[in-house]
Amino acid sequence: MGYDGNLTPLFDLASQPGRAAPYTEFLGQDIIAVDQFDRRRLAYLFQRADEMRDLVAHAGACDLLRGYVLTCLFYEPSTRTSASFIAAMQRLGGTVIPITQGVQFSSVSKGESLPDTIRVLEQYSDVIVLRHPDVGSAQVAAEAATVPIINGGDGVGEHPTQALLDLFTIYEELGGVDGLKVAMVGDLRYGRTVHSLTRLLLQYNVSLRFVSPDTLRLPLNLMNTVIDSGINVRESDNVQDVIGDADVLYVTRIQKERFGDAAAYDEVKDAYEITPALMRQAKEKMVIMHPLPRVGEIHTSVDADPRAAYFRQVQNGMFIRMALLAAVLGKA
Amino acid sequence: MGYDGNLTPLFDLASQPGRAAPYTEFLGQDIIAVDQFDRRRLAYLFQRADEMRDLVAHAGACDLLRGYVLTCLFYEPSTRTSASFIAAMQRLGGTVIPITQGVQFSSVSKGESLPDTIRVLEQYSDVIVLRHPDVGSAQVAAEAATVPIINGGDGVGEHPTQALLDLFTIYEELGGVDGLKVAMVGDLRYGRTVHSLTRLLLQYNVSLRFVSPDTLRLPLNLMNTVIDSGINVRESDNVQDVIGDADVLYVTRIQKERFGDAAAYDEVKDAYEITPALMRQAKEKMVIMHPLPRVGEIHTSVDADPRAAYFRQVQNGMFIRMALLAAVLGKA
Amino acid sequence: MGYDGNLTPLFDLASQPGRAAPYTEFLGQDIIAVDQFDRRRLAYLFQRADEMRDLVAHAGACDLLRGYVLTCLFYEPSTRTSASFIAAMQRLGGTVIPITQGVQFSSVSKGESLPDTIRVLEQYSDVIVLRHPDVGSAQVAAEAATVPIINGGDGVGEHPTQALLDLFTIYEELGGVDGLKVAMVGDLRYGRTVHSLTRLLLQYNVSLRFVSPDTLRLPLNLMNTVIDSGINVRESDNVQDVIGDADVLYVTRIQKERFGDAAAYDEVKDAYEITPALMRQAKEKMVIMHPLPRVGEIHTSVDADPRAAYFRQVQNGMFIRMALLAAVLGKA
Repeated sequence: MGYDGNLTPLFDLASQPGRAAPYTEFLGQDIIAVDQFDRRRLAYLFQRADEMRDLVAHAGACDLLRGYVLTCLFYEPSTRTSASFIAAMQRLGGTVIPITQGVQFSSVSKGESLPDTIRVLEQYSDVIVLRHPDVGSAQVAAEAATVPIINGGDGVGEHPTQALLDLFTIYEELGGVDGLKVAMVGDLRYGRTVHSLTRLLLQYNVSLRFVSPDTLRLPLNLMNTVIDSGINVRESDNVQDVIGDADVLYVTRIQKERFGDAAAYDEVKDAYEITPALMRQAKEKMVIMHPLPRVGEIHTSVDADPRAAYFRQVQNGMFIRMALLAAVLGKA
Repeated sequence: MGYDGNLTPLFDLASQPGRAAPYTEFLGQDIIAVDQFDRRRLAYLFQRADEMRDLVAHAGACDLLRGYVLTCLFYEPSTRTSASFIAAMQRLGGTVIPITQGVQFSSVSKGESLPDTIRVLEQYSDVIVLRHPDVGSAQVAAEAATVPIINGGDGVGEHPTQALLDLFTIYEELGGVDGLKVAMVGDLRYGRTVHSLTRLLLQYNVSLRFVSPDTLRLPLNLMNTVIDSGINVRESDNVQDVIGDADVLYVTRIQKERFGDAAAYDEVKDAYEITPALMRQAKEKMVIMHPLPRVGEIHTSVDADPRAAYFRQVQNGMFIRMALLAAVLGKA
Repeated sequence: MGYDGNLTPLFDLASQPGRAAPYTEFLGQDIIAVDQFDRRRLAYLFQRADEMRDLVAHAGACDLLRGYVLTCLFYEPSTRTSASFIAAMQRLGGTVIPITQGVQFSSVSKGESLPDTIRVLEQYSDVIVLRHPDVGSAQVAAEAATVPIINGGDGVGEHPTQALLDLFTIYEELGGVDGLKVAMVGDLRYGRTVHSLTRLLLQYNVSLRFVSPDTLRLPLNLMNTVIDSGINVRESDNVQDVIGDADVLYVTRIQKERFGDAAAYDEVKDAYEITPALMRQAKEKMVIMHPLPRVGEIHTSVDADPRAAYFRQVQNGMFIRMALLAAVLGKA
């Protein structure tokens, strides 16, 4: 149904911080971009996600979405995102039409427009999660649909449920967001998750540290937005500069392909590897996060460290998606 | 189990029109071809499909097929057909084994005969929907199986659930079938859905109009069958000839590849495009249908016209499939 | 969680034969290899699988695993194994995340280690079935996981649920295992199912007959294990030698590719084909089994013979998998 056509926030950010939005606000909404979420909405969502955690721990599943059908329409495979939505829907008692592989070979893509495909699939289902390689495709789908569309990633565009689960993990691990020092480490130029999480964090009273090789610094326009917000921010090219002070270390992958030659890559990568030795310099109460998959930037010997939150972060994604599915279908 | 080996109708067409068949008639039957359906059976099916519409509108799902497992065995991908059957089974409370992609790579196809594959899968499931590129494969499967086989399309052969949903849509949109003027437009030579729907319509008191380029006219033997039935029929090569009079406009895709050269295609295609201008010449109470996907033969600006029934037609497919699944499993 | 790190049996084989293990023994266990199963455990499992047969016959499904989610993680496609596990989980009231096709294209395999993938997926699910081309991968997964891992086949390594369903079929068809004469026929060198079943059978008081072409005889080390066990064993190169005496004929496929030239293959293959003529020499009460798919080594005209148990064997696989899933999740 489109959420309002031009990706501006649905809510005034001046609204009372700490107050949760009423659940009916989400009913029938599409979830396209992080700027739809103000503090009231985030507070509501995190409350619900917390309840989902209890539900899963105690009963595994419930009947809240019994009779509802979710279509997972993935034009490109993303096993972890589709698995997370499938588990979320099933644990709420709903069912799933899994179109998660091979869409490119099927009639869906044989010359049919995305709006037509969406209008076909909404005849069978009550909500659709769309993963698509093209920026803006979730908004196109939302404008065609009469059922809620949840953006499961549209190319280099948005992947709002990832950003929400990242923020929820900080909230859960450290008991809140205000007052924290959050360091983003790795590829800050191309890392979509870093950009979305940063935009969400600007709604809170945080300090930000951006740590990256010179060629992978945060894009200019996002950096300007951060500066304009007036929050405390610093850039660095070595994780040593932030490790002693950070409450959150959000680590991302540095892809070899981003560098002109292998030597340039080898030169920088050690400055960004998280090891047990590095962790000895970190605060006792802090968390390491990672959107996964990792390929070496966090050493596996760090996994046993209680501050390593990246697998708990994965499970938080299921709780956030449960909360979102229930919310857009109007089930409290 | 095979329905009777040589595709002749199971029921005498002379049976009382308007009377619904008792539901037990379907129990354990395979659904292979449209000539299995006389008016009594169609009346029964449409009654049940109507109930399914109510069920979905009010409750989303029910427990009628709780404990039943459907295997969707698709040797070629067909996202819309498999999605429709999956939603249908789930909304009846049953579950699905989705073998809908990549069968060609798996052990199922590694030299194993279709009858063996069917006899394996029926050990796990209570009903099987088969999509296969070879004509006659559904009948081969039915002869091997002890559970009901539903033909989800066997190459250029049959695709009975599509024809049933097409007829059901006419019935729902216009309150009945007798007395209507139905125009079929586009590729009438290769269009499998046109052939099947035409055969079903011959059981009713209708007038038929066939509108196609000269090279894509209805096949000779089917045209002769239509003529022999004694119903009112005309052919034409321009949709203008039928638009003012038709109660149903059943539009199909004209594929460029059917023409020797692009010029020949460009010459004819405009005579078959459905536009708002054309719709102004149509009756106020009529319906445009299309088996989808479309690639331009119905202009998207027609979508908002209340007579545009093609997306409602898609949902009718789910209701018909719910009715069929319940019927062959003997659940009233 | 790893079952104990070095694939030694969990139970002393000297334990009382005929006594079933208490069900709590399976709670939280990984199912990696057949040598985890002593007679007590097998007795327990077969009792439970028998109950599952009754359940499916009378109700189709139950609520035993309601609220539980199974992830089927298949790095190589195996339609029959994944379909069997999916049906098993659904008939117990649980749900499934089906990652059964195309894993090689998705983020799961993009450089992510198997332990990381497992630790991600266990955040969503309560039990994982893993199919992987590499020997030992199930054990690697089990060591990383906190939820039970069931080995669905790891390359030329183990495929324990196949061996369990094979043994269960003998038990069901003939009322027990002790005292039987079991003949294994075909490719005994590469046939993984033959090796696993043989190892299970050594726990019983059986006679074994191995019938194969000279180049496809049982591997030396397994043959020595059989001999050391002290049971009655003979080898042969013609099924005629065993047909009159065998209680069980376990037939496997002889793959053409195993032979240097087609002539060598054609020479031997007739000596291993099961035909109605051959069956006339067999005992009245015996069973023919086959792990399927077959490609000609059992003539289809044998299918109607009541001794042909290979399709019943398939269904037994579903019952065994239901019993295992319930057991490792601690549901009696």
